[in-house]
Amino acid sequence: MATGTLSHVANRYRAPLTLYLLIYTDLLDCQQFVVPYKTPSDCSAEEFFDISSLSCVKCGPNQRRSTTGLICICKTGYQTLTTDTASVTCRQCPTDKPAVTKGGFGCIRCPGSLSDEGHCQCPPGDILVERDVNGNLLEEARCVTCNGNTPGLSVPNSSGDRCERCQATFINSSCVCNPPNIQAGGLCFPPGSLSTNVNPSVNYAQLKFSIQSAWFVKNLYSSSAACLVFSNLTACQALGNMCVMNMHSFSGISTDACRLFNIIFRSRAPLSSTQDISYWRVNLPWLYYGDEPGLASRVLQTDPVPIRFSFRGRNKNTDVKLLAAVYNVRGEFLRWEQEAGRSLQLCPETATKQAAAFSFGTAYQQSCDFSVAELLGTHPEPLFYDVFMDLGGGENRKLLPLPTLIYNQQYNGRFINQENMKNWYLSRRIFLVDTLSGREKSIGSQPKVIRVATSVKIRFQLVPRTQEGQVYPPLLTVTYSDVLITDINTQTVSTTFAVEYEMDQNEARMKTDTALGVMGGVAVLYSLLKTVSWKRRIGSVHIDVEAILKFLLFYAGDLANVFFAVTVGTGLYWLIFYKAQQFVSVVLPLPAQEEQFVTYIGCAFALKAIQFLHKLIIQVSVDIFFIDWERPRSKASRTAQAGEVKREPAPVSIWRTYFVANEWNEIQTIRKISPTFQIMAVLFFLEVLGFSNLALRDPWPTLERSSQAYTPSYSLMLRYGLAASLWLCIGLLQVIFFTVFHEHFVEDKIRQFVDLCSISNVSVLLLSHRSFGYYIHGRSVHGHADTNMEEMNNNLKRESESLCGQRGLLPNTEIQTFQVSLARRLCEQYERIREPLSRRSGPSRLMDAGSANLFEQNTRAYHTMNHFLGSVIDHAQPDMDYIVKDKLMFERVIGMEFLEPNEKSIFYNDEAHSFSDLLYYGNEATLLIFDTLFFCVVDLGSQNFVLASVLTYVQQMIFRLIRNTLGRKNLVNKTLVDERFLI
Amino acid sequence: MATGTLSHVANRYRAPLTLYLLIYTDLLDCQQFVVPYKTPSDCSAEEFFDISSLSCVKCGPNQRRSTTGLICICKTGYQTLTTDTASVTCRQCPTDKPAVTKGGFGCIRCPGSLSDEGHCQCPPGDILVERDVNGNLLEEARCVTCNGNTPGLSVPNSSGDRCERCQATFINSSCVCNPPNIQAGGLCFPPGSLSTNVNPSVNYAQLKFSIQSAWFVKNLYSSSAACLVFSNLTACQALGNMCVMNMHSFSGISTDACRLFNIIFRSRAPLSSTQDISYWRVNLPWLYYGDEPGLASRVLQTDPVPIRFSFRGRNKNTDVKLLAAVYNVRGEFLRWEQEAGRSLQLCPETATKQAAAFSFGTAYQQSCDFSVAELLGTHPEPLFYDVFMDLGGGENRKLLPLPTLIYNQQYNGRFINQENMKNWYLSRRIFLVDTLSGREKSIGSQPKVIRVATSVKIRFQLVPRTQEGQVYPPLLTVTYSDVLITDINTQTVSTTFAVEYEMDQNEARMKTDTALGVMGGVAVLYSLLKTVSWKRRIGSVHIDVEAILKFLLFYAGDLANVFFAVTVGTGLYWLIFYKAQQFVSVVLPLPAQEEQFVTYIGCAFALKAIQFLHKLIIQVSVDIFFIDWERPRSKASRTAQAGEVKREPAPVSIWRTYFVANEWNEIQTIRKISPTFQIMAVLFFLEVLGFSNLALRDPWPTLERSSQAYTPSYSLMLRYGLAASLWLCIGLLQVIFFTVFHEHFVEDKIRQFVDLCSISNVSVLLLSHRSFGYYIHGRSVHGHADTNMEEMNNNLKRESESLCGQRGLLPNTEIQTFQVSLARRLCEQYERIREPLSRRSGPSRLMDAGSANLFEQNTRAYHTMNHFLGSVIDHAQPDMDYIVKDKLMFERVIGMEFLEPNEKSIFYNDEAHSFSDLLYYGNEATLLIFDTLFFCVVDLGSQNFVLASVLTYVQQMIFRLIRNTLGRKNLVNKTLVDERFLI
Repeated sequence: MATGTLSHVANRYRAPLTLYLLIYTDLLDCQQFVVPYKTPSDCSAEEFFDISSLSCVKCGPNQRRSTTGLICICKTGYQTLTTDTASVTCRQCPTDKPAVTKGGFGCIRCPGSLSDEGHCQCPPGDILVERDVNGNLLEEARCVTCNGNTPGLSVPNSSGDRCERCQATFINSSCVCNPPNIQAGGLCFPPGSLSTNVNPSVNYAQLKFSIQSAWFVKNLYSSSAACLVFSNLTACQALGNMCVMNMHSFSGISTDACRLFNIIFRSRAPLSSTQDISYWRVNLPWLYYGDEPGLASRVLQTDPVPIRFSFRGRNKNTDVKLLAAVYNVRGEFLRWEQEAGRSLQLCPETATKQAAAFSFGTAYQQSCDFSVAELLGTHPEPLFYDVFMDLGGGENRKLLPLPTLIYNQQYNGRFINQENMKNWYLSRRIFLVDTLSGREKSIGSQPKVIRVATSVKIRFQLVPRTQEGQVYPPLLTVTYSDVLITDINTQTVSTTFAVEYEMDQNEARMKTDTALGVMGGVAVLYSLLKTVSWKRRIGSVHIDVEAILKFLLFYAGDLANVFFAVTVGTGLYWLIFYKAQQFVSVVLPLPAQEEQFVTYIGCAFALKAIQFLHKLIIQVSVDIFFIDWERPRSKASRTAQAGEVKREPAPVSIWRTYFVANEWNEIQTIRKISPTFQIMAVLFFLEVLGFSNLALRDPWPTLERSSQAYTPSYSLMLRYGLAASLWLCIGLLQVIFFTVFHEHFVEDKIRQFVDLCSISNVSVLLLSHRSFGYYIHGRSVHGHADTNMEEMNNNLKRESESLCGQRGLLPNTEIQTFQVSLARRLCEQYERIREPLSRRSGPSRLMDAGSANLFEQNTRAYHTMNHFLGSVIDHAQPDMDYIVKDKLMFERVIGMEFLEPNEKSIFYNDEAHSFSDLLYYGNEATLLIFDTLFFCVVDLGSQNFVLASVLTYVQQMIFRLIRNTLGRKNLVNKTLVDERFLI
Repeated sequence: MATGTLSHVANRYRAPLTLYLLIYTDLLDCQQFVVPYKTPSDCSAEEFFDISSLSCVKCGPNQRRSTTGLICICKTGYQTLTTDTASVTCRQCPTDKPAVTKGGFGCIRCPGSLSDEGHCQCPPGDILVERDVNGNLLEEARCVTCNGNTPGLSVPNSSGDRCERCQATFINSSCVCNPPNIQAGGLCFPPGSLSTNVNPSVNYAQLKFSIQSAWFVKNLYSSSAACLVFSNLTACQALGNMCVMNMHSFSGISTDACRLFNIIFRSRAPLSSTQDISYWRVNLPWLYYGDEPGLASRVLQTDPVPIRFSFRGRNKNTDVKLLAAVYNVRGEFLRWEQEAGRSLQLCPETATKQAAAFSFGTAYQQSCDFSVAELLGTHPEPLFYDVFMDLGGGENRKLLPLPTLIYNQQYNGRFINQENMKNWYLSRRIFLVDTLSGREKSIGSQPKVIRVATSVKIRFQLVPRTQEGQVYPPLLTVTYSDVLITDINTQTVSTTFAVEYEMDQNEARMKTDTALGVMGGVAVLYSLLKTVSWKRRIGSVHIDVEAILKFLLFYAGDLANVFFAVTVGTGLYWLIFYKAQQFVSVVLPLPAQEEQFVTYIGCAFALKAIQFLHKLIIQVSVDIFFIDWERPRSKASRTAQAGEVKREPAPVSIWRTYFVANEWNEIQTIRKISPTFQIMAVLFFLEVLGFSNLALRDPWPTLERSSQAYTPSYSLMLRYGLAASLWLCIGLLQVIFFTVFHEHFVEDKIRQFVDLCSISNVSVLLLSHRSFGYYIHGRSVHGHADTNMEEMNNNLKRESESLCGQRGLLPNTEIQTFQVSLARRLCEQYERIREPLSRRSGPSRLMDAGSANLFEQNTRAYHTMNHFLGSVIDHAQPDMDYIVKDKLMFERVIGMEFLEPNEKSIFYNDEAHSFSDLLYYGNEATLLIFDTLFFCVVDLGSQNFVLASVLTYVQQMIFRLIRNTLGRKNLVNKTLVDERFLI
């Protein structure tokens, strides 16, 4: 029915009512198990919070709730009558005994007035006695004065119902601290012990203000005085803690905590120091090392710690164990914290991960954000840590105090610890979170500022040239931040804990630079040699701008190799020595120390890129000519067909040349490796098999890491060393596989091309320089190649059965490939014939009218060239003859010819198919190194091997495309083969 | 000198001495700042631990250390004299006052004997009075008896120096609990309230023993009695907690904690229940839901929670807020824990990560290991949580009690909560770590067993068909583990906290299965059609085994497509609907619910692989013949050269055929996409751009995840949906790019091949079936192609200037490619001529003697075939004529020819180059889907996209190699082209 009415109303208020209905239905659905939320403070004054039902329940008659709100108690003036504990009954006290006793169960008459709570009230200094010594309740309570003088020496106790002996410092003055004695902090100080003019303020230098801290106001003077006058141990610690809360900052002007500490410190000078450490005075905490200049470096870099770290083996020792003496803010010694390494890490982490921080050699950093509310809840009071490193030693366990550098410490207004190490002022004792000193009005109030150790860093420094894992005393660096409280629920504080390992890298850097210098010098010589060789090959002797440019280009390539060798060597050195060392003798360079290394890699890459582009340009501008040895079948047919064809009677088919050109076009970018397989394999090793874990900044050479374990950051050096060596290794394996196995048993594209030349009766002349180049001798041993299938197969069969001559240029040899040094005369003749061909690519090509004519000219030049070169090879040109000889070993090594081809051209036997230098194939080293560097540079920039792989693939694709396109264009221009046949 | 002496000794004890020397040197080096480790307990009885120097310091005369060891106090019988607090002086008490007062400052005469500590000792029940009421010290101490009867009703207080009112339950019996009253736990119970025969044991079912717990021995009876008799609230809670520590296990036999609880529970039945919940009785904690069968499903699956979850938009609500009422083991209410979600997670994690657990829709799981020592330190006592979900509502905040399932709960010995949901016995209140109940001897002893909640899981279940994000009450499942303590430092306990979301997947599964069924049916029809078409094309009509096998092969392919479509659709559905929904209407299937889906993917992959292999086999066994149209130049030359060449006078060069064959060999495995680029692009999107984050089990469609944020696990379904759709998208984009842009503007390998045929005067006949195939018409329009460069270029120029005919088969058409249906007669003739050729691949090839003869036979067959096919195409064989026609649209769609080529063969115009169906090129869809499935299957198995990429690359490489090798072999066999020309 209700729904009916509602739907009637719904016509007018449709939308909101629907919502209402939904909620209404929900409440009906779920009413069963939904309870209202009540807290003790939600209950009214006459209700208590029933902890079983979690709701507010009414108290009985004459009752009110207690302060906690969890039970009911009798109202003021009512005594408690109890039959059992469940139900309290209250009865009003009779008028002659109007007061309720302290326990609440009895009524009593008062000697004086009643308090607000309905109890009897005595004057100050008196105690209230409600029972006699046997426990019988008195009819009327008594107020009794405590005897403060000898022999009583008593004062009322805290609850005011008993006389107790007064505090020891008051004894001399009859339990009252009369002037000129000074009463402070519950103690009575004799006059003149310490000026009461102290400065209880805390300075927040970051926020540029200071506040009068309630804690300091209450305790600074009394702690100092008690420490100075009574040598009270906890008071001295409390004073020290106040100095620590002020971040050890110290000035000669104000009598703040640290100055008071120093006054007392100096007053203790005559007494012997503690533990034989002169900075640690009797009864005082050890807060400062001395302020002598240069003390820091003496402490930190003179004596090694007497334990040795070792990563493996019988003496494996990687545990850094920190201990801390923990004090509370009142100066009480709480405990020896055995797991101080964990306590210093504010960020919540599993024990396993936190323990990684103290495994020697693992670079550790953990950061996290805390909401201020959380910090206030978990750190109501600061704790103070005196941190030591455990040196072990069984029964006679020794501890090494960690020198501490408070980054924000001020010394007479200067931030000396942010300056040079010479000025550092080392100290001891730290805290992590201080929410106390920032409370201005009272100790219970909300703090105005909190101070948090936002960065705690432990730095180990290796002893130079140690072979046994010795380190100097580790330095604990603490940076505090002051956080002005505005909204505790939204404000956050970020904290960091880090452990780092450092060693002097100057020696390593010097070695690197030396290697670079030496090898760079050799590279200069080598590049000079190359330039000279180049000059000879182009047949020029003058030193001109071009030669200098060429030298620079050669030098770029050689220098790139030098940089590459040095950086890969360095990377591998670190990878092997760091990951494999037993006793710690090296630690990784810090990220800041890696910068120079990264610069070297950048240089290597840039120079390699120049070399690569240079080679690319040379390759796509090489001079190439196909010499067709095929002659028309018979002279007889010539006359018969003269009428039909204009110039040549029986045309020699061009298809063999097309075939050879097409194949040449296809082998331009084949390589000795499969570049994509290379990428995939590297990716597989790095990302799937987990080799990338080797580049983590820890000493463990394991590939698998548990997801529970701490993962340190990556070292750029290790990443580079790993990626480059892996790339090179897989590349080399591929080269070996392809050259040894694949080319012998599957297919060898280069040899196939040479064979094709031979079968198709086409020779190839490649001129990489003006007077230097390569010649592939392809003259068919059968005389004719332009034939049908039977003859072709017969020819092949005859050759396989050795029924015909050998394919070599010289009779009875098999050598078909040569390096050629052309004599000047031959060169000039060649260029003269070539001229119309090379003009083709010039601007005249745009003149459409002349193109037909030009084409005819070209064809004529082509035929002339074919004829000319054929006759040269056939020794038919006596003035342009050539000799065939072997190259000397030394000539091969340095890549230069000693003989000048003055009279006769020289054909050097070249079984190694070195014409592939004009293809990708012969430049595998350059390509491989370029790819390696490209991969590594992308990875160094992005720290992402997958991205590096993808970009390397794209790079290879683009350059292959460019090389193919330009190479094909060049082929078309130089050989007159139509582009459409190069498919 | 010392070193000198040592080196002298060293001759005899070399090795150990070297070590000694090293240590010795070290100690000399570092002695400065090394301190010994001392703790208060290391100091002897006459030393105290100096907290400033952290060392043991001797006490003054007549002093000994205090119990804490941090200060010195006077020895027994010595009074303390103080001038200041720093130095305590002790003086022996005079013989007439041999006892020291409690404070230690005075000496006093005793009425009785002296205690061991040198204080006066009074008989039990008496108090010791040392001062009078004014605080004056008495000459002789007095022992006073407290008056236990009315009106005093007092007993000595705990320190024995004062009479106080006795405990309320003792009042009736003059402060003494006389039998038949029963005294227990500091209370005095009236007789007959509860049998004292209780069982204070804790049962460890996993360890198969139970122990008498010290805590239960001490408190079980008194708590039960106080709860039952006095309705003491904390006692009731304490009793409930003991039941919870017993994991709510309940049996009718033993009077253990839960049975006592139930006795009291039943006794409260007449009273009204709390909060209108019948399972929650007055004064008692709510521990159990009822034990009616089926109650669990009613509680968990009837009424939705009255709040709605929404992932985005104005009403975005993803916060699940848990509250908990926290009690300590004594039954005291501690607080309302507002951040109960964090408290329930034992594992230390940053607040951000822990908060992710309560962001609705994020599957959360966090595990970690604790050392037992750590647990003992952090959890000295268990805390008890009554967990609620906050429903919000401003002032009238409502809470929903979370039903809890204790996995280990026993009910009369049965683990009912491990059974079917019908038998579940829901409960309330959990604890996380209980190190208390396992203490056997005393409460302070080391526990024998600890009980840890090793798995806490919250499961949300979505209301079926909700569009508004409604859920049923979430279920909290807790599994406890009992850990027998053997070595607290090495033992570890693993704990897990998880939040999961579930919905009824039956509907979705039914839909999937329906789609599969329907599409599977269509696939049957389609495969039948294909089989029929195949039968016609091979020119057979019988239904034989081969036809059935063929049908199954076709069906495998089609079914694979069906499975693929359904799985990709499902994956995409989840990806889109889950990640993009506003109001929560679906949640992801749980890993167990994904199994069927994975099976479907497996089916799709297996069937696709069959289809792929089938196509591969067809492709590498296709029948191919190159028809050379070139005829010798002139008959005149024939006679002139007759003497030279045997059969044919002027041989037609075979090189054009070689060229065409070589190109055909090269286009075998080209595709419409670049497969490597495909892999790289997918990898780039998934791993570099972070698309893989879309597959995480949370509702956020963001690609970038902060490293600080929680990373949920992956959903297999989402991973598949994401990977497959990404792969298909990139594949389609590539296909579009290549077919639209690349082939029009850069190069089209297929068209190039057709053009090459035309220029080289070679036609290609491809027979994929016995009487069906493809024909590429390549007859040169110039009559001759076997010519030199000038003529070649002239020809090309003439053609580009349209000075000659068109290339098409029919005059004045351009269509060069045809599908051919051969008439039976033509087929038979073709096969007859072909016979010697096809015999070549038979076993006779091994007979070396016949090979020359065979070769001749082959060549003859080749020429005959060439001539025969040429004449057929030229319409020169009237009985084997053909007609050219267009294919009907419908014929094209279903891939079947309606006309039977009875009399004349039919050449269908085919501008779409469908002969590429015999290459990789025409089967891009199959290849793409196969690659996609391969990639996804590897990824599902390894959850590693990089591995999937690498393996997909290897797979593509292998199949390409196989296809190329077999394809080339086939080409060699069918066309007689020497393998060495196919490079």
